Formats: sequence, C-alpha cells, structure tokens
Amino acid sequence: MPKRVNPDERREAIAEAVYRVIGDRGWDAVTLRDVASTAGVSMGQVQHYFSTKTEMLLFALTHMRARVLARLEQQLADLPQPVTYQERVRATIRVMLPVDEPGRQEAAVNIAFFSAATVTPEYARGLRDGYARQLAFGRATFAAAAAEGLLSDGIDPVKEADALYFLVMGLMGPVLIGQLTPEAALDLLDHQLSRIFRPSPP
Amino acid sequence: MPKRVNPDERREAIAEAVYRVIGDRGWDAVTLRDVASTAGVSMGQVQHYFSTKTEMLLFALTHMRARVLARLEQQLADLPQPVTYQERVRATIRVMLPVDEPGRQEAAVNIAFFSAATVTPEYARGLRDGYARQLAFGRATFAAAAAEGLLSDGIDPVKEADALYFLVMGLMGPVLIGQLTPEAALDLLDHQLSRIFRPSPP
Repeated sequence: MPKRVNPDERREAIAEAVYRVIGDRGWDAVTLRDVASTAGVSMGQVQHYFSTKTEMLLFALTHMRARVLARLEQQLADLPQPVTYQERVRATIRVMLPVDEPGRQEAAVNIAFFSAATVTPEYARGLRDGYARQLAFGRATFAAAAAEGLLSDGIDPVKEADALYFLVMGLMGPVLIGQLTPEAALDLLDHQLSRIFRPSPP
Repeated sequence: MPKRVNPDERREAIAEAVYRVIGDRGWDAVTLRDVASTAGVSMGQVQHYFSTKTEMLLFALTHMRARVLARLEQQLADLPQPVTYQERVRATIRVMLPVDEPGRQEAAVNIAFFSAATVTPEYARGLRDGYARQLAFGRATFAAAAAEGLLSDGIDPVKEADALYFLVMGLMGPVLIGQLTPEAALDLLDHQLSRIFRPSPP
C-alpha cells in the first residue's frame, strides 16, 4: 500500500527546499528542477503542487512567515514566565534577524523577494500583504504596552513601532553580508528599546 | 578625425545603462549585450572597458555613490544658506530614499546588489566598503553636531547615527515596492530627527 502523503506537508517540504536553494546558491538558482532535487521529490511532484514557479515562490514566502512565527512562539515559551512586553518585542526582533541558520535563510529569501519585487508585481503584492500584517502586529503590541503605562513619557507608539520595524528590516541585509555582527545589531536595537520602554521596576 | 573619447565618461555612461536595465527590468536582465544596447555602444566597447560582468557591476556600484553624492551637493546648494546640521542630515536621508526616478533606480540597484551579495563575496565586499564609509560619515556628522551642543540631552551620537542610517536602509525597499509612500517614510524619519536634535532657537 503506498504511503499516504499529506499535501500540506509536501508543499511545506518544497518551500523548505526553496529556502535552502536561495540561501545556498541565490535567487537565480531557483528552478523547479533544483528545488525538486533538493526536496528529494520528482519535478512532476513539484508541478503537481504548484503550476508555476511564481506560485511556488509565493507559497514559500507565505510559509516562511508561519515558520518564523512558530520559532518565535517556541522561543517565547522557553523564556522565564511571565514574559514582559519588552522581552516579547526583543524576541520578535531577534527572530527576524539572521542570528542563526534559519534566520540567515529567511533574510536571504526576504532580500531576494524584494529584489524580484521591483520588477514583478505579484511578489511586491505578496511582500506588502505580509508586511502590513507585521506592522499592524507591532503597532498593536506597542498600543497595548502604552495602555499599561509601560512606554516612556512622550513616546508615540505608532511612529516608534513602525520605525523599530523598519530598523530591523534595515539591519537584516547588513548582518547577512557581514557588515555588522548580529550582536552589534541587537545592541543598536536594545538602545532603542531602553529609550522606548520605561525601566522595569526593581 | 575620430571623436576623442573620455574613458571615464564612457565608463560612467555604461554604469548609467546598468542602472536603467536593473531599474526597468531587474538584476536578471543585466547582460553585456543589454547594457551595451541601452548605452548605445557596441558589446566590444563594453568589453574594452570591463573585462567581466562582475567588474562592470562593481564599477557601477562605486559610481552610484558618486552620483548620489553629486545630487546631494546640488540639493544642499539649493537650500537657504547656511544649512543647519539637521537640514543637512535630512537632505542626506532624502537623497538615499526612492523619492524620485534617480533615487528609485539607485534603491533597486542597491537591493539587487544585496541579494546578489548573499552568494557572491565580491559584491558583499563592495557593499561593505561603501557602507562603512557612509556610516563613518554619519557618525562624524553627529559627533560634530554634538560638539556644537545641537543634540538633545542623553543622545548617544554613535548609536543614533547608526540606527538612523539603518532605518533609512530599511525604508528603501518598502518605499520601492509601494508599502509606504516616500512622504510617510520621511515623516517617520522626521519624528526621529526631532527627537535627536534640539529644537532650533526661534
């Protein structure tokens, strides 16, 4: 009896292969053939799940966000509980930066999509949808922290949430190409967090 | 008698063609043939000035910085004199963002180089060299402003110069793909500038 295949798992395995190909050999190396070979499936199977390369890449982009979120949930669960707002924001920032191999792959994929998006409207739309959700999440977190009186006097939660998010994005590429270390990037971000959040009570 | 050709001008014209090809059709479209045709010269002439595509692209990256700087000098000269430090920093930020067609091309080229740099060490080195110079320039500007007492109390000039620079870099891609308008990006940056710099005396 043939093994039952879970289509979601198969699609996700193909997406993981896309990240490995982009992370190791770059965007230009992404062909159905290379992705199939990296995923250990036939080209026919890749084509069964995705009718075009664009569709495959857009699924990979969407799945990447689920993967980042799952890693974040795990890291938050591993912190001493309860987790403060500032710790939660810091963990979210850390998971977005290329501080480990999954983060490095994701940063490479992210930058490759931005480059492709400058000439391919579908990718631009896919990126905008995802980033709009992330910005909304950041603003909601800062609004909740402000409502609990946890932000410093004079902090504009919307403008600071947005600026912090785009600062993280601006550090992604430089860390990836070795312009600064992950530690130096986190140090710059911590400096902003210690300004935005009130010092915790002793 | 054949027209005398200035080699520097010819190289720069080829670099300008590289920006047009990347800006209009993306990194993948950059071939010696397309660049030659866009520059209105023969492939042989391109090969006379650049022995490889990598060499041509690295020259284009270096020339781009000179082009940005020339535009900045022009814009600073057009401002009411004397130009304050805050106005100078704002003009520098503005020239780095895709607020006009030259800026849009440069942002597309910049992002394409980052994507290529994740798998091509020469491009990573070229980017790091340029960014190290820009970071040093930003820090020197903030140190000079601090020495004149123009920064707000408690501002760390090095950490804030670096964070502002990476924030601009993080806004480049999102503005390019239409996630936010150039005006919204400048508004976020002005919010940071008004925190970092002391209010001007009336």
